[in-house]
Amino acid sequence: MTLVESMNPRTGEPAGMGVSETPPAELNSTLSLAKSAARRFASEPLTGRIALLRAIADKLDNRADELIPLADSETGLGKDRLTTEVARTTFQLRHFADVIEEGSFLEATIDTPAPNGKPTPRPDLRRQLEPLGPVLVFAASNFPFAFSIAGGDTASALAAGCPVIIKAHEGHPELSRRTGEIISSVVAEQNLPAGVFTVVFGQNAGRDAIVDHRIRAAGFTGSTTGGRALFDLATGRVDPIPFYGELGSINPTVVTKAATRTRGADIAAEYVTSVTLGTGQFCTKPGLLFLPVGHGLDQALADAVSAVPASPMLNARIAENYAQISAEISAHPAVRNLVTPRLHTEPGAWGVPALFSTSAESFTEAADRLAEECFGPSSLIVEYTTTHELINALQSVEGSLTATVHGEQSDIQSIAPVLDVLRPRSGRLIWNGWPTGVAVAWSMQHGGPWPSSTNPLHSSVGASAVRRWMRPVTYQSFPQDLLPEALRDGNPLGIPRRVDGALRR
Amino acid sequence: MTLVESMNPRTGEPAGMGVSETPPAELNSTLSLAKSAARRFASEPLTGRIALLRAIADKLDNRADELIPLADSETGLGKDRLTTEVARTTFQLRHFADVIEEGSFLEATIDTPAPNGKPTPRPDLRRQLEPLGPVLVFAASNFPFAFSIAGGDTASALAAGCPVIIKAHEGHPELSRRTGEIISSVVAEQNLPAGVFTVVFGQNAGRDAIVDHRIRAAGFTGSTTGGRALFDLATGRVDPIPFYGELGSINPTVVTKAATRTRGADIAAEYVTSVTLGTGQFCTKPGLLFLPVGHGLDQALADAVSAVPASPMLNARIAENYAQISAEISAHPAVRNLVTPRLHTEPGAWGVPALFSTSAESFTEAADRLAEECFGPSSLIVEYTTTHELINALQSVEGSLTATVHGEQSDIQSIAPVLDVLRPRSGRLIWNGWPTGVAVAWSMQHGGPWPSSTNPLHSSVGASAVRRWMRPVTYQSFPQDLLPEALRDGNPLGIPRRVDGALRR
Repeated sequence: MTLVESMNPRTGEPAGMGVSETPPAELNSTLSLAKSAARRFASEPLTGRIALLRAIADKLDNRADELIPLADSETGLGKDRLTTEVARTTFQLRHFADVIEEGSFLEATIDTPAPNGKPTPRPDLRRQLEPLGPVLVFAASNFPFAFSIAGGDTASALAAGCPVIIKAHEGHPELSRRTGEIISSVVAEQNLPAGVFTVVFGQNAGRDAIVDHRIRAAGFTGSTTGGRALFDLATGRVDPIPFYGELGSINPTVVTKAATRTRGADIAAEYVTSVTLGTGQFCTKPGLLFLPVGHGLDQALADAVSAVPASPMLNARIAENYAQISAEISAHPAVRNLVTPRLHTEPGAWGVPALFSTSAESFTEAADRLAEECFGPSSLIVEYTTTHELINALQSVEGSLTATVHGEQSDIQSIAPVLDVLRPRSGRLIWNGWPTGVAVAWSMQHGGPWPSSTNPLHSSVGASAVRRWMRPVTYQSFPQDLLPEALRDGNPLGIPRRVDGALRR
Repeated sequence: MTLVESMNPRTGEPAGMGVSETPPAELNSTLSLAKSAARRFASEPLTGRIALLRAIADKLDNRADELIPLADSETGLGKDRLTTEVARTTFQLRHFADVIEEGSFLEATIDTPAPNGKPTPRPDLRRQLEPLGPVLVFAASNFPFAFSIAGGDTASALAAGCPVIIKAHEGHPELSRRTGEIISSVVAEQNLPAGVFTVVFGQNAGRDAIVDHRIRAAGFTGSTTGGRALFDLATGRVDPIPFYGELGSINPTVVTKAATRTRGADIAAEYVTSVTLGTGQFCTKPGLLFLPVGHGLDQALADAVSAVPASPMLNARIAENYAQISAEISAHPAVRNLVTPRLHTEPGAWGVPALFSTSAESFTEAADRLAEECFGPSSLIVEYTTTHELINALQSVEGSLTATVHGEQSDIQSIAPVLDVLRPRSGRLIWNGWPTGVAVAWSMQHGGPWPSSTNPLHSSVGASAVRRWMRPVTYQSFPQDLLPEALRDGNPLGIPRRVDGALRR
């Protein structure tokens, strides 16, 4: 039996005993259990789902002391960061509980009959969103809690009322197994069928599951290559299913001339912190910094980057890719090395920060190479002379999760053309801040135009993430007793509804 | 230059002079105009879009007397039906104007800053939906107004703020050209750029446009085969785009034993009316009627179907397909012919109603043949003995736009298992009614699980249809003057918004 084995990136030593890949027969019974659990879970009162999410959050918080060292040994992300990440993960579970408790997520909409309606009579129509059925999630490597077993895709799918089968990431199998056991124990304590939640292991299991008729939607966070392959499988099915992939992102950041003058040194320092956070392994890492020519920050930026020590990367493959791509950028004829990439020769998987610089003109010409995401602690300064040149360069940047502008009050009148080129290229626009750190909130958008996500209509973070796993169903002229509770006369659930076009509570 | 030529289905004679296919160079400039119009149209105040939709509706109403005879000569649908359809189409345009005037469609959501937020501080976050950019629409044949040039996809995309390029259906090119001219004249009267709306002709233009980088989403109403081919093109792009296809649908209808006893004759008569409406060319035609064994309605059903005269079908290809598929079902060994299909030998494209019957057991065994949509005025009675047998048969039915149950008060306690098998298979559930006739309303759902649509999350009719053409954008820590109006302090648009989780006006 093949094992999924992790490595301690600080030492290169095995991080545990390994976890067996899920064999086809076991995957098959997992899929059947999820399918049969789907109806039962969908008909569970909302209070049951709310209790489930809160109980998972509580139990994860209680077990954090045991999970964090395990996560650290498999990912090398460090105990401080992982402690914050557990808190974010359980906050997110509770946030989704709050979202479904509020009730708007059902989009309950009622049109009372209009027997004399023009142009034709209108019957009694009542619409709500209902769960799609079993959801397949592919866990990410870089957030072993927040975008993994108990992460946003799992939490939002459970909130939507969908059973979850999650394919563990190869980078942290022991943590995945342990987190999965905790969630499954809560599912049992809540008297829900075991098929509501299962972790599977191995790439074959993921590939087999995504084309299985029992899976009704899938979510993914990871590389553009991996996400594209799974997107093609999901959309190429005899019965295509929705696939939500959050892929790579370059996250351009623009600094105006006025902001450079006023607080260039601060911006440079903050930038380096954002780029090197978590060894640069954030999908929102600001990979491009557009600075005006003559900014005078080369030395400050280079010093700040050089001062950041090598730190562990998630696994050997990621460290090798980082070394390769940063070496390619370093060797590009149009690129100046402010901090030349260095290999870390100690055992394990380490990343050494690097920093590059080029002109906007060169960037525009070589964007296919230079605007490519480099996952890890390096980034590229792009120097522009005029707004025209800046806009030209930005036009060669592909879709991103975020785009950031650092500007002053005096820029507000003139910045519109820059925002007009950034807006269609990003899901979140940031003013005088940094893209790393994705707040869990009602109004968060974490997604964006291709290739930053496979579908720009959706978000993997924030309240609206629930909608990815639900579909509208309309009941026409239905007897009260056969209607879902959310749509009955008298609003027994006390949720916000739209009645004859007007929002009501 | 190749012409798109229509035929009068009543006579087989040409219905007009034909319209030239759009040559590649013209398509290219159309795409560029749409792209450059997108930014201008998106930044137009909502009042501009509202005025545009209402002005299109007014002008179509004013020109109805000229358009309806043209539509009748190209489609043979008859002046009464077409008069209602124009009214439905202009009602729909005005409904979308009302929807955007109400403002909830923007989903404006604000989270005020929480500098001491746990687990991490939360910045000021403001989210709204914004237009995706140029939308490509493929018009349908069977509703030359409501699902064609001025139909729901066009209306909802314009309401969303997206320029529309619509590929005319080959069945009614003259009407398409004329309707397009009317809409374009309104676009000009409203001082909007011409690229906001263009009609293109020919399958090559459609195929070239759907893979063009300037197109950001596409909508389609038509056959499963055609829709699948376009879906594959849209999702196979280097930069995949959302594709919303409303494809075929079989629309199962179940009659309980009690309803058969109480009002079987009425149900039979209404059923035949629904099946033969518009020569059976509705995507919501109830193609399967599940009746209890011993229903005693064979003669009544056969008499009612025989009494419906042959009527024109939309075009020769559709009439040939209908003749072929109904002949295959007629010849199936498990099928009894209640009304045997007949060919109509007069010139033109005509459909003669037919009616078939089989047992639930045979249906379940041969569902791959018998549960296939037959576009035209034929349908299949499926006789069941027990609820168990009924449910087995329903489980072999694929996703549909609708599913209908005719039942009595006495059925309400026992019908849940039947609804449980219908619900995951349909987008709209109907009690004691008929699926034909899709009301334009806030709570309509017109869409459903594959193969009735390519994406079960969306609807092509009703207020939520706008959402298909919009994507969320979040503004983080933005200055008031740079925020979209919908997200500014003080709610200058006076729209419903969610602030710190609570709905407010």
